[in-house]
Amino acid sequence: MADKLIIFDTTLRDGEQSPGASMTKDEKLRIARQLERLRVDVIEAGFAASSNGDFEAVQSIANAIKDSTVCSLSRANDRDIARAAEALQGANSARIHTFIATSALHMEKKLRMTPDQVLEQAKQSVRFARNLVGDIEFSPEDGYRSDVDFLCRVIEAVIAEGATTINVPDTVGYAVPELYGNFIKTLRERIPNSDKAIWSVHCHNDLGMAVANSLAGVKIGGARQVECTINGLGERAGNCSLEEVVMAVKTRRDYFGLDVGIDTQHIVAASRMVSQTTGFVVQPNKAVVGANAFAHASGIHQDGVLKARDTYEIMRAEDVGWSNNKIVLGKLSGRNAFKQRLQDLGVQMDSETEINNAFARFKELADRKSEIFDEDILALVSDESVTSEKEQYGFVSLSQHSETGEQPQASIVFTVDGKEVKGESSGNGPVDASLKAIESHVQSGAEMVLYSVNAISGSTESQGEVTVRLQNSGRVVNGVGADPDIVVASAKAYLSALNKLQSKADRVAAQG
Amino acid sequence: MADKLIIFDTTLRDGEQSPGASMTKDEKLRIARQLERLRVDVIEAGFAASSNGDFEAVQSIANAIKDSTVCSLSRANDRDIARAAEALQGANSARIHTFIATSALHMEKKLRMTPDQVLEQAKQSVRFARNLVGDIEFSPEDGYRSDVDFLCRVIEAVIAEGATTINVPDTVGYAVPELYGNFIKTLRERIPNSDKAIWSVHCHNDLGMAVANSLAGVKIGGARQVECTINGLGERAGNCSLEEVVMAVKTRRDYFGLDVGIDTQHIVAASRMVSQTTGFVVQPNKAVVGANAFAHASGIHQDGVLKARDTYEIMRAEDVGWSNNKIVLGKLSGRNAFKQRLQDLGVQMDSETEINNAFARFKELADRKSEIFDEDILALVSDESVTSEKEQYGFVSLSQHSETGEQPQASIVFTVDGKEVKGESSGNGPVDASLKAIESHVQSGAEMVLYSVNAISGSTESQGEVTVRLQNSGRVVNGVGADPDIVVASAKAYLSALNKLQSKADRVAAQG
Repeated sequence: MADKLIIFDTTLRDGEQSPGASMTKDEKLRIARQLERLRVDVIEAGFAASSNGDFEAVQSIANAIKDSTVCSLSRANDRDIARAAEALQGANSARIHTFIATSALHMEKKLRMTPDQVLEQAKQSVRFARNLVGDIEFSPEDGYRSDVDFLCRVIEAVIAEGATTINVPDTVGYAVPELYGNFIKTLRERIPNSDKAIWSVHCHNDLGMAVANSLAGVKIGGARQVECTINGLGERAGNCSLEEVVMAVKTRRDYFGLDVGIDTQHIVAASRMVSQTTGFVVQPNKAVVGANAFAHASGIHQDGVLKARDTYEIMRAEDVGWSNNKIVLGKLSGRNAFKQRLQDLGVQMDSETEINNAFARFKELADRKSEIFDEDILALVSDESVTSEKEQYGFVSLSQHSETGEQPQASIVFTVDGKEVKGESSGNGPVDASLKAIESHVQSGAEMVLYSVNAISGSTESQGEVTVRLQNSGRVVNGVGADPDIVVASAKAYLSALNKLQSKADRVAAQG
Repeated sequence: MADKLIIFDTTLRDGEQSPGASMTKDEKLRIARQLERLRVDVIEAGFAASSNGDFEAVQSIANAIKDSTVCSLSRANDRDIARAAEALQGANSARIHTFIATSALHMEKKLRMTPDQVLEQAKQSVRFARNLVGDIEFSPEDGYRSDVDFLCRVIEAVIAEGATTINVPDTVGYAVPELYGNFIKTLRERIPNSDKAIWSVHCHNDLGMAVANSLAGVKIGGARQVECTINGLGERAGNCSLEEVVMAVKTRRDYFGLDVGIDTQHIVAASRMVSQTTGFVVQPNKAVVGANAFAHASGIHQDGVLKARDTYEIMRAEDVGWSNNKIVLGKLSGRNAFKQRLQDLGVQMDSETEINNAFARFKELADRKSEIFDEDILALVSDESVTSEKEQYGFVSLSQHSETGEQPQASIVFTVDGKEVKGESSGNGPVDASLKAIESHVQSGAEMVLYSVNAISGSTESQGEVTVRLQNSGRVVNGVGADPDIVVASAKAYLSALNKLQSKADRVAAQG
């Protein structure tokens, strides 16, 4: 029987650390459910000690997820570890992932600790964690740039203390496959008790080689866990992409000889969910999940592909969840068809009320638009401005006008804690005028750092989905809004972002 | 002295083959000039025999470019090769790149030829090409999936006929680094005259390993040319990224020990130019050129980076052209400052009239917007609807209104062959209404396959840049329009796309 490659997804932790990608608890829970559907082995749900918000997110994911191990990151100190264990109490299967930097540069400049202090703290933390949870992962941060003798000492010691997984991060994305693979191999050969732990790789994509480095760690180094994220989300150039590493191992099983447990049919839905939630677009030429990744998904048939599909395709689009024959919904589609489609799209609604509300919005949209595509439905359910009623700000109505030679004008009615207010403003364009009309009342002082319109489907008859990213006092939030009128979608997205700015939270920085 | 790694850019050929990425002659010329500024060694300018449009593009690039070798792709037949040589006549340094498939699958299913026929045609073509141009590259299409004995016979024969570069494509993106590197090594060891040619790698990114595979071909296999594209543009998941492969070789010079001639300072400008021209967005977590690729470019400073930059950064953002201290232009900026900024941004204007026109648009924009960022200027000069006067359709003015509960309405005035016409329509949103107002006159029958708004800078005060992709009778074109009013930008983009649809051209499919 082939060895199994453990897929450890860190979209909700390392991915979320990407500037601008922070998510709410509900968003994280929704993605965690999709990761469970994907049959990810381990879900790193967050960094419980970093903020109350993250604690609650880890906790609610630990309580909700049944089939995947749920993991929290933790610095190598008792307080962080205790907090992680507390958040994970409700989990079927829990893991604590503790880390401390081991490279000379990081120990000196960031930690301001001696190597012996670092070694002692690593041991003590694993010992402490081991008493709380049976499944302990240890990461030497910036491991790939660490002195190999020192690294061997640290890893041997933490395995002796009971660490069950050893993860070797290429924190800055500096590795090349051959060297990284041999680095893992050397560590495993030199450390006497290395066979007592599962070895794991964690690569960043700064030089575009995260996937190849991870796989060299597996093939040459003998690692059996890969840490990765949906869409390769993560700080800077991001992490190893889950979809790429999984499809590489599956497509080249002849070479890797490993099993992966992922249900690849849910990959595209997961990719869209993460992209819509964070506002981080996926480029069309992204492997596996980009709109052009499969020739036929682009709508243009090519001679070679028509003659024999495998002349140009090594994977099948259906296998990763690109549906071939989309059934288009419309005005006459019933509640059951709508509910079935939500399920196919990996959207989980917690109550019948939620489904009923979404169905009502669906019918309203169907009155205005003859064909409702999957993209429209996903936009509909991710349109936060209408889903939540407890929010401070809510959209009511908008009127705007622009004409060449005149200043665009907008007038908007929205609720503040349930009370209707009206704002009016001019601006450089109708969107600008509408957002200024909101600000004329709210005066949030927030800076807009991203305004992005996501292509939903080809035509402008579709809903437009707008992401607005606001920054205020060091906190960055995304708001998403959808409407066939792009100006309305923008106003909804802005109000949704303002709602999120209300829940303040301070966070500490985690490892990469 | 270290060996030199030749950078062969195929953005204008393999990149342009990506569905939806087709470019006009002027766009290709503009990008070719940027590639020359980057000091790319070889520019593959197109596939001269595939269409008259491509012939003219190759010809104009061959005439304009002085410092880079200009190359045309060509199937392995006399007609194609003669056409390529003709297009390249004006080049300072010309190369013909001829190819024929050598894998059993492609020979049988696509070419319907026997191996002996393929061998004979390869030899004959190189012989014919060699009489026209001294610099001949040969590619066995789907080389990596070809029978190695047969491949050795073909390559030995074409080197004997005078091929000076041998390129081994992984056409379908199936390779892994170790295997691909050893494949090139085996070929070079087994082919007696292999030292008479420079070896080249050409990898696709279907499994996310194009960069690592290319570099394994260099490191293990001894290849000394890499074929790549800006932003990794290309069919399906695209090609090896120029920016990633170049920065990997530079950053890990300790390992690769090779020189590259690229002036990396122009990388970000080249990336933006290609993205704006094709409408293919670059995801924020794309290595080197993504908005988040460098921590500090995201506008958020992190503790580690502040303490010591190299704790998290292995490259410097400035080295690839992310400018640190942007000088913001405004109302009071003069023509010289504007011209200087154009130069810094890598924008070449061919005449003083063009500069004057662009400056006039700049002043007009500055009246409406206090701070003009680099992104605004790039949008300004790429706003095709106002740059060209010979076009069939031109924007004049627009009036639109939307109000909750009513159907959005738009009324637009535009020129058709110089004569003003007015169109009116309602729609699902103001953008939809405006485009329908245009179609009420034009009735192009085109299908919109992409509508995308590119984030220019954070705020909605900025110009919005819209890309519209239209498809009609198998032809796909992109139109770009920019304006602070997103509805106006959309109308301009639509008119620009309609203009491009006028110039019909049939093309043949090329190799991957």
